[in-house]
Amino acid sequence: MKTINIGLLGCGTVGAGVAKLIIKNRDLITSRTGALFVLKRVADINKDLALQFGKDVFTTDADKIIDDPDIDIVIELIGGTGVAKEFILKAIDNGKQVVTANKALLADSGSFLFEAANKKGVDLAFEAGVAGCIPIIKTLRESLVADYVKGIKGILNGTCNYILSKCTEDGIPFAEALKEAQKKGFAEADPTLDVEGIDTAHKLAILTSLAYGTEISFDDIYVKGITNITSDDIEFAKFFGYKIKLLAISKHHGDTIEARVHPTMVPFDNILASVAGSMNAVEVSGDAVGDMVLYGHGAGMMPTANAVLSDTVDLARNILNGTRQKIPLFSCQPDQVKRIPVLPIEEVSTHYYFRFSVQDCSGVLAKIALVLGNYNISLKSVNQKGGEVDGSVTIVMMTHLVRESDVRNALQEIHRIDVVTSRPVLIRIEDENEKL
Amino acid sequence: MKTINIGLLGCGTVGAGVAKLIIKNRDLITSRTGALFVLKRVADINKDLALQFGKDVFTTDADKIIDDPDIDIVIELIGGTGVAKEFILKAIDNGKQVVTANKALLADSGSFLFEAANKKGVDLAFEAGVAGCIPIIKTLRESLVADYVKGIKGILNGTCNYILSKCTEDGIPFAEALKEAQKKGFAEADPTLDVEGIDTAHKLAILTSLAYGTEISFDDIYVKGITNITSDDIEFAKFFGYKIKLLAISKHHGDTIEARVHPTMVPFDNILASVAGSMNAVEVSGDAVGDMVLYGHGAGMMPTANAVLSDTVDLARNILNGTRQKIPLFSCQPDQVKRIPVLPIEEVSTHYYFRFSVQDCSGVLAKIALVLGNYNISLKSVNQKGGEVDGSVTIVMMTHLVRESDVRNALQEIHRIDVVTSRPVLIRIEDENEKL
Repeated sequence: MKTINIGLLGCGTVGAGVAKLIIKNRDLITSRTGALFVLKRVADINKDLALQFGKDVFTTDADKIIDDPDIDIVIELIGGTGVAKEFILKAIDNGKQVVTANKALLADSGSFLFEAANKKGVDLAFEAGVAGCIPIIKTLRESLVADYVKGIKGILNGTCNYILSKCTEDGIPFAEALKEAQKKGFAEADPTLDVEGIDTAHKLAILTSLAYGTEISFDDIYVKGITNITSDDIEFAKFFGYKIKLLAISKHHGDTIEARVHPTMVPFDNILASVAGSMNAVEVSGDAVGDMVLYGHGAGMMPTANAVLSDTVDLARNILNGTRQKIPLFSCQPDQVKRIPVLPIEEVSTHYYFRFSVQDCSGVLAKIALVLGNYNISLKSVNQKGGEVDGSVTIVMMTHLVRESDVRNALQEIHRIDVVTSRPVLIRIEDENEKL
Repeated sequence: MKTINIGLLGCGTVGAGVAKLIIKNRDLITSRTGALFVLKRVADINKDLALQFGKDVFTTDADKIIDDPDIDIVIELIGGTGVAKEFILKAIDNGKQVVTANKALLADSGSFLFEAANKKGVDLAFEAGVAGCIPIIKTLRESLVADYVKGIKGILNGTCNYILSKCTEDGIPFAEALKEAQKKGFAEADPTLDVEGIDTAHKLAILTSLAYGTEISFDDIYVKGITNITSDDIEFAKFFGYKIKLLAISKHHGDTIEARVHPTMVPFDNILASVAGSMNAVEVSGDAVGDMVLYGHGAGMMPTANAVLSDTVDLARNILNGTRQKIPLFSCQPDQVKRIPVLPIEEVSTHYYFRFSVQDCSGVLAKIALVLGNYNISLKSVNQKGGEVDGSVTIVMMTHLVRESDVRNALQEIHRIDVVTSRPVLIRIEDENEKL
C-alpha cells in the first residue's frame, strides 16, 4: 500500500484535532483512498507535546519537516503572517504540497503565495481558512466551475454570530453578550479581530477572489464591526421583521465588485436569519444555480480539522495519481486572473435603517424628511416611538434602494438640526424581495 | 489548447440547459480549466432539435455518440431504467467517461453500473442525480472523506416541499396544493413518483450508499408519501412548534442502518423547517463536523444543468491530467464496500405524533392511555380539542422515544376500542433536542 507522509506545523487546538483524525480515522481514510496516511512529524514550540507524540515524531524545529524529503504534505496551522508565511514559502520551494487554515495570511499575501506555488507547480489548499468545515472553497472552485457567481453573503464569524444571537434572544446588551461568549470560549480575551469584523473581512477577501477570479486587496473591503449595535436597534429590527447579523457581502456588477462587512438587517424568512449561535453560513448566488446556502460549524477543533483533512486527502489523491494542480489555486488559470475594481462604499447602493433621537416637539419629522428628500432618499416605512425618560423621541426609518454617499451627506446634515439630540444611527439592509 | 468533446444523450429540459451552459459559458469554462469544451453531438428522439443544433451535431441515433472515438465524455439525460441503462453500459464498455442525472437508475442498478465502470476503469458521475445543484455527492465523497457520517436528513423532492409549504402557509388541503403545484409546473400530471415518496427514496438510497460505503437495496427503504397529510395535522404540528416535511432519513448505528422516507415533524428552530417552496436541503451529521446543511434548488433546468457541468469538468480534469477514478465511485475502495443491514421500520425507535378521533364521552382518554401504557409508550404531551360538528373529539399526543412495532400494535388495539371513531393517525417526529 502507498504511504502519504504528513508533517504538521503547529499543534494548537486545530492541530491537535488534525493529529487525532489522522491517527483515529486511519482505517477509514485508507478504506476510502487505498493509501496509508502517516503523521510523520509534528513541530510546535510547546515542548510538552514531545510526551504525547514521542521523540521520533515531535520536534521544535520546523525545518525538520520542511526539509524532510520523505514528507509529502505539509500542514501549516501556526497562523498569523509571520513565520507561517516563511515556512509555507520554504515548503513550496522544497516542492511540498501545502495545506493551511491561515485566512489572515491568505487575505494578506494570497496572490504572492499562489504565484510561488504556481512557479513550483505545487498545490496550496485552504478549505479550513474560511467557515470551518463548510466546503465553500470546494463549492466555488469545483461545483460552480461552469457558472457565473453573482454574489456572496456570509455569516463567517462564529463569535459575532454568537454575540448577536445572544443579544437578540435574551435581550441583553453587547457588552454582556461578549462577556458570556468569552466565558464559554466563543470569544478570545482580546476579541478585536472578531467583533471589529476583521476576521470576517479576511474570509470575504478569499471568497471574493475565488468567486470572480479576481485579485482583491484587503484594504479595498469596507469593514464595520458589531460593537455599536444596541438593544434598541435589535428590537426595532424585530419589529420590522429583521434580524441583525454581521454579514460579509460581495456582489459582481460586471465591471466592478462590491465587498463589504458590516452589521446587516436580514429578513426573518431568509435562511441566513435562522443561523443561530456560533454557526456559520454562506449564501452563493449563481447565474445558473440561483441561491445556494451552505451551513455548518465555522470553527472549533474537529470541524476545522475535518476541513484540513479533506484538503490533505485531495492533495494526496493528486500525489497518488501523479498529478498536481488539477484545480487552479485562483479558481481560474493563472493567466486569467483579473483585477476587477472594488466600488468604494460611498458608491454602493443598498437599503438602510436609520434611527434618530430627537426632542419631542412639532415639526421635527418634517425637518428630517425634507433633508432626506433633498438627497433623493425615498422611504419605505417610518415609525416614531415616544415616551422616553428624557423627553426625547425615537424615529426609525427604512429606505428603498439609495446610494451610500447620499445617505452619509443626509445624515450629517440631519445631525446638525438643533432638535436632533444624538448622532443618527444607520444599519444596512439586505432584502431579497427588493432586488437590485 | 486541449479539447474535450462531449456527447449528450437526451435533450429535454435539463439537456437543453446543459447545451446552453456548454455553449454560452464556453469562455468561462476555458478560463477555469484551460481547455475547450465542445458539444460535439446531441442525440434525442425529438427530430425538431436538428434545426437548433444542425445536422452535424444532432442525431436520433445514440450509437453515433457512444461509438464515436472522438467523444471523451457521454452525458446521459434520458432518465428511467430502460435504454438509459443500456446506453450507459455501452458507453462504459467503450471506455467513455459518463455523467448522468438518473437517480432511478442509480437507486435500482447503482452497484451493477459501478462494477462495470470499475472494471473498465472509467468514471460514472452523478451529482445531478440528488438535490439538483446542491453539491451533496461531492461533499460526502470528498469533504467528509476523513469523517464518519452518523446521519442524513434531507428534503429531496421539490414537489412535495412545495405542496407541504403551500398547505402550511395558506391553510389549504393537499389536493388543492397539488393542483396549484401542477399549474405552476412544480408537479407532473401524474405526481405519483413524487408525492408517494419514491423519488425521495431513490435519492436517499444513493446518499446512504455513499455516506456509509454500503450497498443498499431500494426495497429495504421504508417509504410513505404525503397524500394523507391533513390540514388538521399541519395545524396541530404548528401548535406544538413543528412543521411537517417529507424527510429522507438515514442513520448509522454501527452494525445496522436506518433508511426511511415519510412525512416528519421538524421543530421550527431546525434549519430544515425554514426550507420553503420547491427548495431542497440536506443535513449531514458527522462525527467530526457535527451538523452541516446544504440548501439550494433541487430541480429545474439550469440548477440541474450546473450539477451536470460540474461533474463534466471534474471528469475532464481527470482526462486532461491523464488520471481516472481519482475518487472511488462508492466513496470507498471497491473492495471495502460493505453491506450493512437496514433495520426494518418496526425496529426503528423515534418520536411520534398521534391523532385520535373519539366519541365525546367519559373515560376515552383513560382507555387510550391504558393501551399506550401497556406498550411502554411514554407521552410527552397530550391535547384534547372538542366541539367538532359531529360530536366527536380529537385527541393528539406526542411521545418520547418509542419503538415503531409497539406503536403499531398499540394503535391497532386503540382502533378497536368502540368509542374510537376512525383509524388513528401517526406522524413521526425528528427532534434534535431529544437525541437518541
